[in-house]
Amino acid sequence: MKVQNAAGRMVETTIGDMTFTPFSGARKYGFSSKLTTFEKALRNCLLKNGMTISFHHQLRNGDFVVNQTLTTIKDLGIKDIRIAQTALFTVHKPVIDFIKDGVITRIEGSLNDTVGDYISKHPLKSPVILRSHGGRWGAVKTGELSIDIAIIAASASDEQGNCTGLLGDSAFGPISYSQIDAMKAKHVIVVTDTIVDYPCKPQEIQERYVDYVVQIDRIGDPNQIASGSLNITDDSEKLNIAHQCVDLMDATGLIKDGMVFQSGAGGISLAAIKYLGERFEEKNVVAGCATGGLTKYIIDIYKAGRVKKIYYSQVFDTESIHFIQNDLGLPADIGHYADPTSKGRTADSLDAVVLGATEVDVHYNVNVNTHSDGRLLHGIGGHQDTAAGADLTIITTPIFRKTNPIVREKVTTITTPGSVIDAIVTNRGIAINPIRTDILEKIKNTIPIIPIQELKNMAYDVTGTPREPSLGEDIIGIIKWFDGTILDMVRVVKEEKP
Amino acid sequence: MKVQNAAGRMVETTIGDMTFTPFSGARKYGFSSKLTTFEKALRNCLLKNGMTISFHHQLRNGDFVVNQTLTTIKDLGIKDIRIAQTALFTVHKPVIDFIKDGVITRIEGSLNDTVGDYISKHPLKSPVILRSHGGRWGAVKTGELSIDIAIIAASASDEQGNCTGLLGDSAFGPISYSQIDAMKAKHVIVVTDTIVDYPCKPQEIQERYVDYVVQIDRIGDPNQIASGSLNITDDSEKLNIAHQCVDLMDATGLIKDGMVFQSGAGGISLAAIKYLGERFEEKNVVAGCATGGLTKYIIDIYKAGRVKKIYYSQVFDTESIHFIQNDLGLPADIGHYADPTSKGRTADSLDAVVLGATEVDVHYNVNVNTHSDGRLLHGIGGHQDTAAGADLTIITTPIFRKTNPIVREKVTTITTPGSVIDAIVTNRGIAINPIRTDILEKIKNTIPIIPIQELKNMAYDVTGTPREPSLGEDIIGIIKWFDGTILDMVRVVKEEKP
Repeated sequence: MKVQNAAGRMVETTIGDMTFTPFSGARKYGFSSKLTTFEKALRNCLLKNGMTISFHHQLRNGDFVVNQTLTTIKDLGIKDIRIAQTALFTVHKPVIDFIKDGVITRIEGSLNDTVGDYISKHPLKSPVILRSHGGRWGAVKTGELSIDIAIIAASASDEQGNCTGLLGDSAFGPISYSQIDAMKAKHVIVVTDTIVDYPCKPQEIQERYVDYVVQIDRIGDPNQIASGSLNITDDSEKLNIAHQCVDLMDATGLIKDGMVFQSGAGGISLAAIKYLGERFEEKNVVAGCATGGLTKYIIDIYKAGRVKKIYYSQVFDTESIHFIQNDLGLPADIGHYADPTSKGRTADSLDAVVLGATEVDVHYNVNVNTHSDGRLLHGIGGHQDTAAGADLTIITTPIFRKTNPIVREKVTTITTPGSVIDAIVTNRGIAINPIRTDILEKIKNTIPIIPIQELKNMAYDVTGTPREPSLGEDIIGIIKWFDGTILDMVRVVKEEKP
Repeated sequence: MKVQNAAGRMVETTIGDMTFTPFSGARKYGFSSKLTTFEKALRNCLLKNGMTISFHHQLRNGDFVVNQTLTTIKDLGIKDIRIAQTALFTVHKPVIDFIKDGVITRIEGSLNDTVGDYISKHPLKSPVILRSHGGRWGAVKTGELSIDIAIIAASASDEQGNCTGLLGDSAFGPISYSQIDAMKAKHVIVVTDTIVDYPCKPQEIQERYVDYVVQIDRIGDPNQIASGSLNITDDSEKLNIAHQCVDLMDATGLIKDGMVFQSGAGGISLAAIKYLGERFEEKNVVAGCATGGLTKYIIDIYKAGRVKKIYYSQVFDTESIHFIQNDLGLPADIGHYADPTSKGRTADSLDAVVLGATEVDVHYNVNVNTHSDGRLLHGIGGHQDTAAGADLTIITTPIFRKTNPIVREKVTTITTPGSVIDAIVTNRGIAINPIRTDILEKIKNTIPIIPIQELKNMAYDVTGTPREPSLGEDIIGIIKWFDGTILDMVRVVKEEKP
């Protein structure tokens, strides 16, 4: 059919099997500020009971944004909110009151410390869903976790919502967790304490995804956002574990030009990184890339010319924040790093990763989520993602802590299954997962190993057989593998009678 | 229901209204090279008759990738392909043979020169669909243009597909057009002549989107990829037009601190940028941002400290390529720049843009697609996107070229409707769109204006009334507005009898 369109032209509405809509007029788009108040932004995003609100955790224990958002939501009279934070910390203790008030009824995201302790004893109406970094990205991407309003804390933003975590008084590093929330949430609000001239540079989140920009007094407490400096452990037993990690990497032939490595921010992990850098010097090796969270110890290796590139998705100390403020380098958002639904994750390039554990069992299963008393006190982080990606996944741990055996018959909760854990490096020896016959072959003349059952026995000799935690039937949490399946369930902890 | 999962844990498959899939086992992901041959990559991407194959045009007239891909497709015996390139140039003349052979039957993308001339006289079975930069992005994003295999030329890539247009002998600038193809195409093949160590830095396309990496001898001819240097016109009439553009911006009050501006790479546009920089100096103004395609003339303003930031989505000369090799700055992929389905386009921040025209009519409609004889010889580029975004959209043109009136009663084809065109600056005076009463008010004492009808009359006085092009009924092309509606249709040009 031929019709006259708004430009005065006669156009066909069908040609062959193609159908067309006639032009109906053009308008100027143009610039208008997205800056508004928190209340107006939430109202304009059609906030209502039952919605899902997401947050990132890069302000860590210095975060003011989660509490302030929830206070505003409560003041607006809204209830039954599902929060989908990437993690909560001690600073988020007020979340307990929002739960008691009925403002929050469901949580999908990591819990650390206080809130985890509370929920361990007081189940929500649905269990908390815990996912790894990559698992959460995949869930938001595929719609398994559907977000109504993403709240994105930024240390600086322009009025259009181009924003960063690198500028301003509350700088915290890249906003790498929220990119998928920005892309997928129905509404997106950037919350900042620092408005900069358009266009904000750098910009981890771009204006194309942002509905509103809200300026508040302070998004966080800089002293709690990042550690001034992270200290390597000075415990000689732990330093010895770190040394053994590097020896193990060396014996398996991984310490060579082009090596890709990652390590966490715990004391043993930091020491392992430092020793790995020293080994690079000794062997005159130049690694290809360090990935994961950035710390001073990785920057030291980079400055020494012993690693060519640094991929980072978060930064853990102020030195690292200053470093990337001067050279953005290769930020890798969580999707690039670990999205299991993608065609390639940077985590898959890892030759070796050093990870921690709350418990390890004789099947090489690792628990980082619950304490041995059953309380859900930690998130999964990148534990699953990197364990499955790395050629050599090393867990470091003492075999017991105080009176609690860490190497044990059965972990309280499985965070990462033993099938992707390759080595347990402890203060009493190294156990290698028997399925890794290739590793066993490579190290047979250099690294003494010990059956994991023996490590368990040595622990139990000191601690005795651990008593079962006192749990009820109610399920307070679900531990997902990063492909969305259920790996384990966390049950309610019975409160002890006083 | 309670079942034992692959980790040996008893888990519920339903809790309340939530259903869960039990963990079925973990595997090591790990690193494996994506490097393969062109044939294998295409076969593994399940290439078959009728598929849609996309390309970007950043190798411009130096591109070897389109022709080589199509040769490989032909050699594999495949036919009835729809190509969805961002643009074709003179170098793509072999496309005509692929059309004659039945390898290509449909095209959605810009045509320049040779192929456009051919199709203007020889319709494909469906009309060619032309979209603006932003319109194409939106069409791929929403699925209106569904891509089976995206071929992404990169001047350097690692074996996992992290790639760039900034490194290597065939460096061409950022791969900003293909990001949406990478995200949305069913399969993605990176084609490069330079494999670099993992991870490639910088990386405009990331491994997460890439299925295969193909290394060929040369992706292009560096001498044709970018101009060594772009020359400002030395025609005094054109220089005068450029001066008037700057006077007009000044009179409308746009030349002030924080100004955001864009200009194309034509001779007049380059001169306008140069003069705008001079005006910044005279007025001691520091602009906020230059956007669009990068040239030496914008870099000069930046180096002089007269513009704070540069957003670019492509680069036009080798000086600009060298510049961003040293300081990546603020690359804006086409979605950030112009996606009409987004929540904010950088193009919307424009205070002023200077654009060209093949024809302009008395309703301020602009044609950049067809020559006055009806032949489809140019794409839309960012013409529509920026015209709708900028507060002041200036079209520069002489009122006639040789014997052809440029300002005329009716454009042969509408590329950008008059409703978003604000000013026509010509060698015989400036016409302001009467709907912009605000501009008319601002400039009334400083800038002499002339009705556009008079400009047309002056042109016709020299050229005579233009004769209608000799067109048939068949529709060879569709010009879309960036919202997906049909703005105009392009009809077949009758071949003159010899």
